[in-house]
Amino acid sequence: MSDLIEALAKLTDEGGLIYGERLQERRFPGAEPLALVRPKTTEEVSAILKLCNERGQAVVPMGGMTGLVEGTMSNNREIVISLERMNQIEEIDVQSRTMTVQSGVPLQTVQEEAEKERMMFPLDLGARGSATVGGNLSTNAGGNRDIRYGMMRDQVLGIEAVLADGTIISSLNKIIKNNTGYDIKQLFIGAEGTLGIVTRMVLRLRAIPASQDMAFVAVNEFTDVTNFLNHIDTALGGSLSAFEVMWKDYYKLVTTPPAEGQPPVPHDYNYYILVEALGGEPSADAERFINALGQCLEDGIIADAVIAQSQGERDAMWAIRDDVGQVGQNAPVFTFDVSVSLDQMESYVEDLRTDLAQKWDDNTCMIFGHLGDGNLHIIVGVGDYSPETKKAVEESVYQGLVPRGGSVSAEHGIGLQKRDYLSWSRSADEIAIMQLVKKALDPNQILNPGKIFA
Amino acid sequence: MSDLIEALAKLTDEGGLIYGERLQERRFPGAEPLALVRPKTTEEVSAILKLCNERGQAVVPMGGMTGLVEGTMSNNREIVISLERMNQIEEIDVQSRTMTVQSGVPLQTVQEEAEKERMMFPLDLGARGSATVGGNLSTNAGGNRDIRYGMMRDQVLGIEAVLADGTIISSLNKIIKNNTGYDIKQLFIGAEGTLGIVTRMVLRLRAIPASQDMAFVAVNEFTDVTNFLNHIDTALGGSLSAFEVMWKDYYKLVTTPPAEGQPPVPHDYNYYILVEALGGEPSADAERFINALGQCLEDGIIADAVIAQSQGERDAMWAIRDDVGQVGQNAPVFTFDVSVSLDQMESYVEDLRTDLAQKWDDNTCMIFGHLGDGNLHIIVGVGDYSPETKKAVEESVYQGLVPRGGSVSAEHGIGLQKRDYLSWSRSADEIAIMQLVKKALDPNQILNPGKIFA
Repeated sequence: MSDLIEALAKLTDEGGLIYGERLQERRFPGAEPLALVRPKTTEEVSAILKLCNERGQAVVPMGGMTGLVEGTMSNNREIVISLERMNQIEEIDVQSRTMTVQSGVPLQTVQEEAEKERMMFPLDLGARGSATVGGNLSTNAGGNRDIRYGMMRDQVLGIEAVLADGTIISSLNKIIKNNTGYDIKQLFIGAEGTLGIVTRMVLRLRAIPASQDMAFVAVNEFTDVTNFLNHIDTALGGSLSAFEVMWKDYYKLVTTPPAEGQPPVPHDYNYYILVEALGGEPSADAERFINALGQCLEDGIIADAVIAQSQGERDAMWAIRDDVGQVGQNAPVFTFDVSVSLDQMESYVEDLRTDLAQKWDDNTCMIFGHLGDGNLHIIVGVGDYSPETKKAVEESVYQGLVPRGGSVSAEHGIGLQKRDYLSWSRSADEIAIMQLVKKALDPNQILNPGKIFA
Repeated sequence: MSDLIEALAKLTDEGGLIYGERLQERRFPGAEPLALVRPKTTEEVSAILKLCNERGQAVVPMGGMTGLVEGTMSNNREIVISLERMNQIEEIDVQSRTMTVQSGVPLQTVQEEAEKERMMFPLDLGARGSATVGGNLSTNAGGNRDIRYGMMRDQVLGIEAVLADGTIISSLNKIIKNNTGYDIKQLFIGAEGTLGIVTRMVLRLRAIPASQDMAFVAVNEFTDVTNFLNHIDTALGGSLSAFEVMWKDYYKLVTTPPAEGQPPVPHDYNYYILVEALGGEPSADAERFINALGQCLEDGIIADAVIAQSQGERDAMWAIRDDVGQVGQNAPVFTFDVSVSLDQMESYVEDLRTDLAQKWDDNTCMIFGHLGDGNLHIIVGVGDYSPETKKAVEESVYQGLVPRGGSVSAEHGIGLQKRDYLSWSRSADEIAIMQLVKKALDPNQILNPGKIFA
C-alpha cells in the first residue's frame, strides 16, 4: 500500500477508497487511476483535497460519465474523485421554490422529485438518468429547453464548493437576488472541475406546466426560420419552450426506415422545426398555439405545419428529434457541438458544406440544433476515422466559426478534446485571464489538470 | 498642472480631461477628485488605466450616478473615469436578437431603440433615464420584471472590459450558449467597477409583448401570498412578468392623500399584490388572466382582486407601486434593499417589527418588494437621522437576515454604504475568495478602492 493510499484511507470509510485490483470493477474514461475516492461528506472532500494539494497530487473529478469532451479523462498518476455517495436530496422548499441537493444526485432524480411536489426542474438532456447535477453544473449543461429556462447556470442559486487547498466555500443561497460582492458561484459553473469541487447546490424550481403543445413546421428559406422564431416567440407570449431545427438531410435520416420515425410533414422542404410551448391552461393554450401557427402559414412565413393531437404524437415528435443514433448509418462519424449567431448561421453552414465537398467527395453532414440558442449539432462522416482525418474534419467545422465569432463548444465544454481549439473561440487575453483565475484558485494545479487548457 | 494631469492630457482629447476649476461644473458623490477623465474609445480607457496602474493611482468608475450605496464615491486623491462619451449603440441585430452598445448608453435609450425594432430590452427600473447600461452591469441591476426576465446578468451575452493594467479583454459574444472555458464576463457583472472597466457589451433582446394584463390583489395571510404566486405563475404559463407585494402600511400610505393614488382594492387587507402578465395575443391573454384570478378567488387563495380595464388603469397601478416618494411623509427615513427566501420572509418581517417597536415607540416601517425574487424594500423612520441611530436601525434590519441566509443587498450592491455588513451575508471564506480574485485581477488595488471591501 503506497503512502498516498494509506493517507487517503485514513480520510474516508471502507467504501470510500477503491484501489489496486478493485479498480478493475470500475470503468474509467482514461487509464486506470491510482485510486478512486468516494467521499460521503463535504468535510471528507476537503480533507482529501488538502492532502492532495500538499502533495501536489492531481485529482480528477468524475460525475455521471456522460460528458462528450474527455473532461474526466484520467491517467495512472492521478486519483479520481467521485461524489456518487453524496447523492441526497436535502430539502425541497415549495414556498421558496428551491431544492437543496448533493452533487451526486442524478438529473432525472431531481426532475422527478420536483414533479412530486408539483414543481418543475427545467434542465433536461438525453443523459438525464446517469448525468449528475454536479456534472451538469461543472459543464454548465444545456439541453432542449434553454430558450425558455436557460442553461444550468440559470438554475443554480447557491453552491457549496471545496477549493484545491481544502477550503470549504459555503454559499448555499436560496434567493434569486443577492448582490453582496462577487457572485462567486459563477466561477465554478462551467469550470469543468478545474477550480474547485462543488459538493452541494441550491437549485431553482419553476412552476409546473399544465399544457404541452407541439408542432412540426417546415420552411424553405433560412431567413424564414429566424422570422418564424421571432413571430412564434412573440405570439406565444412567454410559453415557447423549444425551437429545434433540423436540416433536410437529418430530417430525412430520422424519418426514413430503418429509423422508426414517421415524417410528420413531407420530405419536400429545406428546414424542419419542432416547436413546443408549455403553458398553464390546456384548452386556451391549444387554441393560441393553433392560431399562432395558422397566422404564420397565412402570412407565408412557414410552408407547412402539423400539430400533435395527442401525448403519443407529442412523444413521437420528440423521438424524431432525439433519434441521433441514426447518424450511425453513416459511421464512422465525428460529432460537433458549436454555436454561431443567427445572422451568421446560414453562411456558416453553406461554407462548411462547400469546404467538406471540396475535401471529401462522399461526405455526409447532418445538422440539427437548439437554434433559438444559436446552438448546432453537426455530424460529419467522411468514411475514415484516423487521427489525421479527425483533425482535418475538426478544422473544417471550426474554421468558419472564427471570423463569425462562433463557439467551438456550445454546451459540451472543452475538456481535453477541444483544448487545441479553445484559441479559435477565445482570444489570447481571454485565455490569459482564465489562467490567472486558475492560478489564483489552484496554484498547485491539482484540479483536473490539463482540462480546458494545458 | 501636475505631472499626473499632464500625463492624462496626452492620452485623451480636449473634452476628455476635466480638472482644476472646471471640476466645479460637475457633480460628484464624494469630494472633488483630482480629475475627471472621459475617454471616447476603449483604447483610451486602456491607456488611462495602464498609466494609473503604473503609478498606483486610484480610479473610480462613474456611471449615471443613480446608485444607492455610494459605489462611485470619490475622494481628492482619486481620479474619476466616466464613459459618458462612449454612448453609441453600435449594432442592433434583429436576427440574432442582440444589441451591441457602449457602456455609457442610458438604459432608457436601449429600451427605446429595441422597441423601434419591435424587440424588447426587459431590464427596467425607475432611474432608467439617467442610469447607464455600464452602471447596470456593474451593479447587476434588478428591477420589476426579474421574475420573468432575470437581472442584468441575464441580459448580457458578451462584454469588452479593460483590466487594471490596461489589458483589453474583448469577449463580445452574441450567442446564448458558449461553454469555452470560464465565463469571464460573470466576473465583471456586479463587481461594482472593482475588477475592470466594462467598455462595451452585447445585450440580449426579447420578443416584444403584444398584451399587458394587470390586477391588484389582496390577501390576509402571508402564506396565501406565496400560494397565490405559485398558482398564478402556473396558470399564466410563462407570461407572469411582475409580482410586486405591498404590506398594508405601505399600501395605505401610497393610496391615501396627499398621495394621488386611488386604492384599487379597499384598505381592509394585510397584503396587496400587483400582478402583471405580458403576452402575445391580447384578447386570449385577457381571458386567461381573468380566469386565473377568478379561480384563485373561488379557491379562497385570494380575498379580493381588481383587474385594470385600460392602459390608464394599468399605468395608475404601476404609479401606486412606484410612488416611493410618499415615504418622505415619515422623514427622516432609512431605506433598505434586502432579500430573504420566501419561507423565511414572514417571520423575518415579524421579528423586525417587534425589534423596531422595542427600540423606538413611534417608528414607521414600510415594506414592499419584488416578492417573487425574495427582494424586499424596507423604509424605516424613527424620527432621528444621526449616525448612531442609522447604525442602530441598520443592525435592526440586517440582524434578522443572518440566521435566515438573507442578503443585505438584493439589487443595489455594497459600495461603501453596506461594506460593514458584507460579512453579515457572506462568510469569511467567501470574502477571502473574493479578495483572492480582486488581488489576481487588480494587484495594485487601483480600481474603485475601498468599495465592497476595505
